Amino acid sequence: MDTTTFTVVGMTCGHCVGAVREELSKIVGVTDVDVDLDSGTVTVTSATELDQQTIDAAVDEAGYEVAR
Amino acid sequence: MDTTTFTVVGMTCGHCVGAVREELSKIVGVTDVDVDLDSGTVTVTSATELDQQTIDAAVDEAGYEVAR
Repeated sequence: MDTTTFTVVGMTCGHCVGAVREELSKIVGVTDVDVDLDSGTVTVTSATELDQQTIDAAVDEAGYEVAR
Repeated sequence: MDTTTFTVVGMTCGHCVGAVREELSKIVGVTDVDVDLDSGTVTVTSATELDQQTIDAAVDEAGYEVAR
């Protein structure tokens, strides 16, 4: 098990949280996605280590951006 | 044709706009729903005059509130 934590910018409501969670959940190996709306903190639990490009692409697909 | 204009509070993003538009569009006789996210102004076009309770219920169903 591996966890990856990052910050997503632009989320404003529960719909946004749901969209980000949905896209990240689609990544192969992901078993859990935790999103904190107030802080933008996202923690993804996965069977194997995820690469940043895959995460960035999923967050982008949801319509948001990973903070750098 | 009749138009009804009111303000919805609590919308923060395009998902919120979509949710409000979807519920209002379900009201019988409604032909168009225009939502301005920045101001919260919603204009509903309908074949016959809509009563406020019906509008309130639809906005509530979407998870928001009509400003008084």
